[in-house]
Amino acid sequence: MSSSLSLVSLTVLSYELHFLTVIGTRAILVEREREMQELTFIVCLLTVSLFISVTFTSQCSAYGLPIVRDISELPQDNFGRPGLSHITIAGSLMHGLKEVEIWLQTFAPGTRTPIHRHSCEEVFVVLKGSGTLYLAPNSHSKSPGKPQEFSIFSNSTFYIPVNDVHQLWNTNEEEDLQVLVVISRPPIKIFMYDEWLMPHTAAKLKFPYYWDEQWHQTTVKDEL
Amino acid sequence: MSSSLSLVSLTVLSYELHFLTVIGTRAILVEREREMQELTFIVCLLTVSLFISVTFTSQCSAYGLPIVRDISELPQDNFGRPGLSHITIAGSLMHGLKEVEIWLQTFAPGTRTPIHRHSCEEVFVVLKGSGTLYLAPNSHSKSPGKPQEFSIFSNSTFYIPVNDVHQLWNTNEEEDLQVLVVISRPPIKIFMYDEWLMPHTAAKLKFPYYWDEQWHQTTVKDEL
Repeated sequence: MSSSLSLVSLTVLSYELHFLTVIGTRAILVEREREMQELTFIVCLLTVSLFISVTFTSQCSAYGLPIVRDISELPQDNFGRPGLSHITIAGSLMHGLKEVEIWLQTFAPGTRTPIHRHSCEEVFVVLKGSGTLYLAPNSHSKSPGKPQEFSIFSNSTFYIPVNDVHQLWNTNEEEDLQVLVVISRPPIKIFMYDEWLMPHTAAKLKFPYYWDEQWHQTTVKDEL
Repeated sequence: MSSSLSLVSLTVLSYELHFLTVIGTRAILVEREREMQELTFIVCLLTVSLFISVTFTSQCSAYGLPIVRDISELPQDNFGRPGLSHITIAGSLMHGLKEVEIWLQTFAPGTRTPIHRHSCEEVFVVLKGSGTLYLAPNSHSKSPGKPQEFSIFSNSTFYIPVNDVHQLWNTNEEEDLQVLVVISRPPIKIFMYDEWLMPHTAAKLKFPYYWDEQWHQTTVKDEL
């Protein structure tokens, strides 16, 4: 009886073991499957990250901005001057350029720049419209004095000698004046005059200039 | 008889004197008229010279060139490269600029720049057409290696990081590619590569560059 009991016990034990083994194997299998799923997910995540990273860096410069940019998608603003549209095409504070900066500016009929000067070279290319350039050549007078007037027109170019006081005015009542502006030694430091007879010493420095303000605040200063 | 002879002599003498006086006065008058004509001519000449001088200087910069210039009237050339049109809009050797230089370049379908690099900043604005920018980022390799490719298109802008080897190619078979190019530190010193696997050390310096050659010869060297 005891042997048959033992046999029964053994059989039960064997079944129990078998059952436990089956449950254990299933648990292990479920665990493995979960691990595989996790791994697959991680692999997918890494692949996508790598792809994004490669795509992004291959399109970007050292400054982290795309090499090629669509001008129509660049931010434009009037910086509080009605009738102005300013786009920094390639900038110092904005894009990390050190030696040149390029703007695309549109002046509505009747609008103008302030009377101003700056100690950098500046070249204009007129893309559309026409207007007037007022230019007071650098002299030893105390103030700029009466400026010379130059007609500017579509497909014309002109440059402002360093420190010459000048003003650009869309004197065409019908059409926008659109210019591409190139300056050296960015970011620009502008001295502004209220009128042509204002003494040079009274001209007010505006730095950072309106379109550089936002970038100037966020740029880490170069301690060198 | 002698008195009547004397009277006749006196009358003759008187007539001779009158005749001489008339002739003398006429000669003086003719002389005066000639002098007046000469003076009038000189006055006219001075007036015209003064007018030209005033007009010229008021339109001209310190470098003796007009402030405002019509781009369509500026000299253009292909400098021995079929399918290229190059115009220096504002130049170092040509116009005396020291910090920036601007070119307007048109590439016929299929044409391209050499593979090259330069240690100045360079910004492009695509005015017309489309094409491909090949750019090998600056690395520690011995040669530029396989470049990255970027599509460029009308109204796009891109810049070439200092010393990155690059090539611009009008890969559009239908249309011209027109770009406005801005560089710093003119005149440009270009290192040219025969192909992308050519070692950096084998790149050939071309200075003065093709469009600067003629001006380089005529420019007085700055001894400072």
